[in-house]
Amino acid sequence: MPNPTAAFLVIGDEILSGRTRDANVQVLALALAGAGIDLVEVRVIRDDRDAIVGAVRSLRTTYDQVFTSGGIGPTHDDITADSIAAAFDVPIGVRDDARALLEERVRERGIPMSEGILRMARIPDGAVLIGNELSGAPGFSIGNVHVMAGVPSIFAAMVAVLVPTLPGGTPTVSGSVVVERGEAFFAAALAEFAREHPDLSIGSYPFRNDDRFAVEVVVRGHDRARVDEAVARLAVVLHEE
Amino acid sequence: MPNPTAAFLVIGDEILSGRTRDANVQVLALALAGAGIDLVEVRVIRDDRDAIVGAVRSLRTTYDQVFTSGGIGPTHDDITADSIAAAFDVPIGVRDDARALLEERVRERGIPMSEGILRMARIPDGAVLIGNELSGAPGFSIGNVHVMAGVPSIFAAMVAVLVPTLPGGTPTVSGSVVVERGEAFFAAALAEFAREHPDLSIGSYPFRNDDRFAVEVVVRGHDRARVDEAVARLAVVLHEE
Repeated sequence: MPNPTAAFLVIGDEILSGRTRDANVQVLALALAGAGIDLVEVRVIRDDRDAIVGAVRSLRTTYDQVFTSGGIGPTHDDITADSIAAAFDVPIGVRDDARALLEERVRERGIPMSEGILRMARIPDGAVLIGNELSGAPGFSIGNVHVMAGVPSIFAAMVAVLVPTLPGGTPTVSGSVVVERGEAFFAAALAEFAREHPDLSIGSYPFRNDDRFAVEVVVRGHDRARVDEAVARLAVVLHEE
Repeated sequence: MPNPTAAFLVIGDEILSGRTRDANVQVLALALAGAGIDLVEVRVIRDDRDAIVGAVRSLRTTYDQVFTSGGIGPTHDDITADSIAAAFDVPIGVRDDARALLEERVRERGIPMSEGILRMARIPDGAVLIGNELSGAPGFSIGNVHVMAGVPSIFAAMVAVLVPTLPGGTPTVSGSVVVERGEAFFAAALAEFAREHPDLSIGSYPFRNDDRFAVEVVVRGHDRARVDEAVARLAVVLHEE
């Protein structure tokens, strides 16, 4: 049976403006790889209701699971929860379970409850909360859409809670060989190697090491022994070419 | 007149697997903001011909400019140029101008020409080359689609050559205020401030500073004096709340 598929929707004016370099894609990608859920697409879109509704409706019919990050805080630009409710055509309001989480946190911190804090208890009808250790403000899952915070530490905490609860598949395992020469020198041999190993995915990733070009050739598959064996053979092939 | 719009298509198995943290989105985003081209969407997709063809066809009709990164090297997994040719329904083959660039580089380095290197001279009919200082392998522009390397240093060099040649608009300028308290404390005042400044985009971005939460409130607009004035007023509002 093939692995479940997933998309990640980053709601991120701050990424599109160049203000912030995304840190959440890699965190989610590694968690999903470990759970055997194949991340097939990432989209970064604006903090815009129509854009969010359109992307969520499209992605949730294409992929088994959809994850979002960003826009669930207390300020005027946090429009994700309302947009998700609109995408699912369900009502949204302050919910008692979310309010209880926030009230607990407010008590712990000795700060007054406010309209802003209560805004974070707005949860679409039918959603299940995603808690986290760092913040009282919960994310939520509705259908196959999982709505999480954008702040990297809170996003990572929510991913750690959520991903193990999802139906998984066969984890992806990988190994690699680093070669200190241009890709062109071994391109033909590598193509032949890839043809001989149709069950493995072979990627060739050049990078600059100081002023020299080097290449990491990565072997990915679903069987540890098979990947390790291929990496060992590949090291011989690449260094002989 | 509104600014031209753009999308960035990252062809990136290595991003989706979690192996690599993307570095190119921020580089392109900042270059486009400076040129007055609005980056509206980023997609990361697999190194898969159908996925590339589908995304290019969709994005190039939706946005004024489309940029891609990745998959233009010499190895079997570099399928971008052929996929772009398929998306445009044009032939592709080794082109003399691209071959000349590669031959020059090969002579400089004193290495033999190979089938792998020549593969990087495969350019769709009708495309214009994008050169760079670091590598002999060119990117190319075809219609409103600009195809660039994935290696960050080469990607940045191509962006620096390409973006100034594109029709631009009014650059986005920004300023920000950092507040060392939770967003909820000033959410209502900030919402009012945003309503009073409909020509500006006001974003509130919490982050963790050691163990404390802090918030950067960013003001973006198209007029330096107007943004600076708003930032000064905002600092008073946020610190009074």
